Amino acid sequence: MPAPTTPSAKAIYDKDRSFVFHSWSAQSSVDPLVITGADGVHVIDGDGNRLLDFSSQLVYTNIGHQHPKVVAAVAEQAHQLCTIAPAHANEARARAAELIIDIAPEGFRKVFFTNGGADAVEHAIRMARLTTGRYKTLSAFRGYHGATQQAINLTGDPRRWPSDYGSAGSVHFFAPFLYRSQFNAETDEQECERALAHLRSLIEFEGPAGFAAIILESIPGTAGIMPPPAGYLAGVRALCDEFGIVMILDEVMAGFGRTGKWLALEHFDAVPDLITFAKGVNSGYVPLGGVMISERIADEFATRAYPGGLTYSGHPLACAAAVATIETMHDEHVVDNAALIGETVLGPGLAELAERHPVIGDVRGLGVFWAIELVADRDTKEPLAPYGGSSPAMAAIASRAQRNGLLMFQNMNRFHLTPPCIVSAEETKQALAILDDALCAL
Amino acid sequence: MPAPTTPSAKAIYDKDRSFVFHSWSAQSSVDPLVITGADGVHVIDGDGNRLLDFSSQLVYTNIGHQHPKVVAAVAEQAHQLCTIAPAHANEARARAAELIIDIAPEGFRKVFFTNGGADAVEHAIRMARLTTGRYKTLSAFRGYHGATQQAINLTGDPRRWPSDYGSAGSVHFFAPFLYRSQFNAETDEQECERALAHLRSLIEFEGPAGFAAIILESIPGTAGIMPPPAGYLAGVRALCDEFGIVMILDEVMAGFGRTGKWLALEHFDAVPDLITFAKGVNSGYVPLGGVMISERIADEFATRAYPGGLTYSGHPLACAAAVATIETMHDEHVVDNAALIGETVLGPGLAELAERHPVIGDVRGLGVFWAIELVADRDTKEPLAPYGGSSPAMAAIASRAQRNGLLMFQNMNRFHLTPPCIVSAEETKQALAILDDALCAL
Ligand SMILES: Cc1ncc(COP(=O)(O)O)c(C=O)c1O
Ligand SMILES: Cc1ncc(COP(=O)(O)O)c(C=O)c1O
Repeated sequence: MPAPTTPSAKAIYDKDRSFVFHSWSAQSSVDPLVITGADGVHVIDGDGNRLLDFSSQLVYTNIGHQHPKVVAAVAEQAHQLCTIAPAHANEARARAAELIIDIAPEGFRKVFFTNGGADAVEHAIRMARLTTGRYKTLSAFRGYHGATQQAINLTGDPRRWPSDYGSAGSVHFFAPFLYRSQFNAETDEQECERALAHLRSLIEFEGPAGFAAIILESIPGTAGIMPPPAGYLAGVRALCDEFGIVMILDEVMAGFGRTGKWLALEHFDAVPDLITFAKGVNSGYVPLGGVMISERIADEFATRAYPGGLTYSGHPLACAAAVATIETMHDEHVVDNAALIGETVLGPGLAELAERHPVIGDVRGLGVFWAIELVADRDTKEPLAPYGGSSPAMAAIASRAQRNGLLMFQNMNRFHLTPPCIVSAEETKQALAILDDALCAL
Repeated sequence: MPAPTTPSAKAIYDKDRSFVFHSWSAQSSVDPLVITGADGVHVIDGDGNRLLDFSSQLVYTNIGHQHPKVVAAVAEQAHQLCTIAPAHANEARARAAELIIDIAPEGFRKVFFTNGGADAVEHAIRMARLTTGRYKTLSAFRGYHGATQQAINLTGDPRRWPSDYGSAGSVHFFAPFLYRSQFNAETDEQECERALAHLRSLIEFEGPAGFAAIILESIPGTAGIMPPPAGYLAGVRALCDEFGIVMILDEVMAGFGRTGKWLALEHFDAVPDLITFAKGVNSGYVPLGGVMISERIADEFATRAYPGGLTYSGHPLACAAAVATIETMHDEHVVDNAALIGETVLGPGLAELAERHPVIGDVRGLGVFWAIELVADRDTKEPLAPYGGSSPAMAAIASRAQRNGLLMFQNMNRFHLTPPCIVSAEETKQALAILDDALCAL
């Protein structure tokens, strides 16, 4: 993207380039888009252009940008009480925990708050290890759990490699993904069965008595939005029960309305022991994450101290944003809207694009959580960018779409269409038209 | 403490007990103080009592509670733009980074933002590992660096033990601490010299070529506020240079005015390669932490991607709070006030208490960063609570002080007097009087 031309935006751009160290990047090639404002499904760039934000930034502004009720709640809490330490009790924190347990599966009792997704995962793993007295973990390739060292060890994508020092005790498995099946499966049923058999073998060969936890994204997000086939999560639950392993579902990206349900796990028939969350819980207006804790695990720490914490656990400002976000999502039927848009506009629209554009190898998703996988060849499924990399073709599509007013989430050979859950049919159609044009230009 | 009697506060208390999972605690024994408001050096409990907050919560509200300029800045940024993803550029983020580099030592160039202290440490260690191509770390006993797995491995206090699975590659050393010298030293000079010799031996016996980083709190905080003797940090710097080890100073607690200087390292004569920060950077009004990066380390990632990140890196709301906090601390000479209070009221006042109360074994600190170490016997230095534990005597002092309106930070056999940097002489004298009374009652 060209740097902004407006002087005030140019100044922000220059200051960013001078002083801000950017994640996941070589600093000399960082070329950020200046964002000066946002509302609903739009962000405003430094030159005043309004862009449709179908990235939801990093797939987290589920309630849209600058929702007036959440903004008002943040401002009000700021005026009342910005912060208190975790040891104390506070209204916003207690109410946020109550609202979160209200949407959790039956049998969930308490919430441990963190600042984001990675530390939620770190603490969930600690709870599992202390509960089981075991150390090893199982997690999926094509999965992401954060970038602190324990969370990156669990991660099953190329972002782990530079920080992988043996990852002792961290075992990875292949989860079901029919489009690129590891198991030569031809149907969802086969894929499910074989993926469960693979997981069982791995557990048996690695030694079942060593595993503290299995962690899985309910629906893997960054890695490509691959809803598991019916029965898979229930099969994982059964393996966990058989071998005494704590089951953790990571709902950091898929949770809080994104899939058209409050939690993605509601699409399936399995209840885990711990659930990690962040992002959608307050749409990222203030950093917040956490762990929903089932009665069984909470009871482990009733009389034995939980040895973990962080300065901003249950931060009142972050919790006030969560309270307003969750209450507003209830009042305004935001989760239903996500489901409806997925079923009636975004899903069918992407399927229709796939009919006309052979470069689209696969369309997957639900709610406002969709991926298109681009391929050089539909038969060989050769991806349009290599695993772990990008390509000129992918970059060209993204930049043409952006010039025409559409931001998407891009990863390897995929674009993810993940707008806020409040997106309208009209906005969705606009986005589909811009994507159509960018694919035509290819 | 008794639960609050006001019905609205009782309701908050009950809701907290039902739904909030508390850090570092057995959940059935959690008995939180309800906090409903705060201003300046005071917090207000559920029954409307005003307490002098000499804990600064977890030693982070350096600018005091609810400073009107910071509150206004948070509310204003909330109305303008709560959040954008790390890849974009934004005014609050760029300006916060500029202001932080402005107070960093010469040769520091960029800021990587995180949500708090633990993730700042995690990323600093990753930067050191990738820069050196080495893995092992050195950190101090009597130190705390956070509770994610990598950060807890580095931690040198009992909070590590339950999460210690070998901590492969994490080597701990004794830093200088004359009052309980590991080295049979009798003077600061001896302690310094012998602590450096111990560190050198450890490096030589562990294998110098294996170490990526040494991380040290400039002044260890939670472990007891032990300013290192003159020459110690310079000696560590020299060892790092000799063996090619990255030097990280952790300023999460000691930074941003607490010691009467912007950074605690300014009291000494050593410049590290990386500095971790959080807490005081925005007084915790919105969760924020980060790493200040020297030119040398920043250059490592100029053309090679830095493989790490987090969803809320450089969160605009958190950065706006940092901008307002730092600017206000400049304008209102908040750091100078911390220095003055330490020199003229808090330090002398604690020394005077020590003269009258033999239970005070040692008084240490500077600025608004002071510890008193309580002992059963001044000669044997037997602590009033065991290492890693508490005692009825310590609890009695804390609860009498709290009943009389004073909150302190308590750890093992120590009370820390760490008020906001804006504390007045009058408020400090009130706190000293309450502490005096609690010690008398012992
Ligand atoms: C499923 C999942 N887990 C964990 C994380 C890490 O969250 P954070 O970036 O807040 O540390 C992410 C981030 O994208 C995620 O998608
Ligand atoms: C020196 C130091 N480093 C790191 C941390 C961890 O910070 P956080 O609790 O924000 O993760 C702390 C917290 O007290 C600290 O004092």
